[in-house]
Amino acid sequence: MLRDTLTFVSSNEEKYREIRGALAGCGVQVARVVLDLPEIQSLDPGEVAAYKARKAYEHLQAGPVLVEDTGLGLVAWSGYPGALIKWVLGAVGEAGLCRQLDAWDDRRATATVVLCLYDGREVRQFVGQTGGTITAAPRGEHGFGWDSIFQPDGFALTYGEMAREDKMKISMRARALDALKNYLQDG
Amino acid sequence: MLRDTLTFVSSNEEKYREIRGALAGCGVQVARVVLDLPEIQSLDPGEVAAYKARKAYEHLQAGPVLVEDTGLGLVAWSGYPGALIKWVLGAVGEAGLCRQLDAWDDRRATATVVLCLYDGREVRQFVGQTGGTITAAPRGEHGFGWDSIFQPDGFALTYGEMAREDKMKISMRARALDALKNYLQDG
Repeated sequence: MLRDTLTFVSSNEEKYREIRGALAGCGVQVARVVLDLPEIQSLDPGEVAAYKARKAYEHLQAGPVLVEDTGLGLVAWSGYPGALIKWVLGAVGEAGLCRQLDAWDDRRATATVVLCLYDGREVRQFVGQTGGTITAAPRGEHGFGWDSIFQPDGFALTYGEMAREDKMKISMRARALDALKNYLQDG
Repeated sequence: MLRDTLTFVSSNEEKYREIRGALAGCGVQVARVVLDLPEIQSLDPGEVAAYKARKAYEHLQAGPVLVEDTGLGLVAWSGYPGALIKWVLGAVGEAGLCRQLDAWDDRRATATVVLCLYDGREVRQFVGQTGGTITAAPRGEHGFGWDSIFQPDGFALTYGEMAREDKMKISMRARALDALKNYLQDG
């Protein structure tokens, strides 16, 4: 059903490495292109990724595309900022998000990664989620995005304090990739 | 150049009343349609409105369209949330935004309204801005959106505490409407 090459649309080199690594040995080559596509306003990373995948497919005309979007939904804020997290971090940084949340007692959050595969016919979504809490201040230098302020449930370290290999074992991205890998292997 | 009917794309009845009132006597009829169009992620209301105006024009195929977008940019947050303000208010409400800002001393903000006119050839933008501060808590029942937490410079009242007529004299929407009105009268 799928060709042997998937085009991963992302400007993020580290995400590409994670995805290529995870799909190695599954019979699918992953190429990467950087495309400046519109992202729609939504808290739901699945909705953002699906819109972007359709646009990427139309634009590239080169077979199946894979698009990732992530979200960080805060319980105290009814799921905000979700997929809009990058705008918060761009404006006030990781430390700023911690400070914005200081007026609330509940610091629980759900990190979500949605991988969206579109082959011109059907949008398929592979979702990984991890529960955790937002720390009082950033900790750790590894990873990217909000890794330094997200402490997954059951661990005393933030993603930013974990080695990449350890994080990959438990991260929401790993869970989404597992779901995608299972689909590709069964297909 | 413009037909005598402009289609204002908005789900907001009160904004429609403001616009229709301001353009009365300027020889242009304003109709309203409610359209569910994608809004792109950006802090800049001009960018959001321009994208939406093009989509609305393509969809309606009924002559010039007018689209409004608003933004509330906080100085302490490098202009965030800007055009994303509705998501913040939807998640935590006006009081919640005040609380998010409590960890910063600088409560200055710029309120922006962009009216975007698209006739199939050129996007024209009419911008109104008002400086002010975000209050410690919501005050007043008038208006909509963030009116209850925005106190314009030089006034002791929030927009939410002002009568609609008084607010219209000084609001960023009135300024954008003046610019649009001048354009329509000159054209």
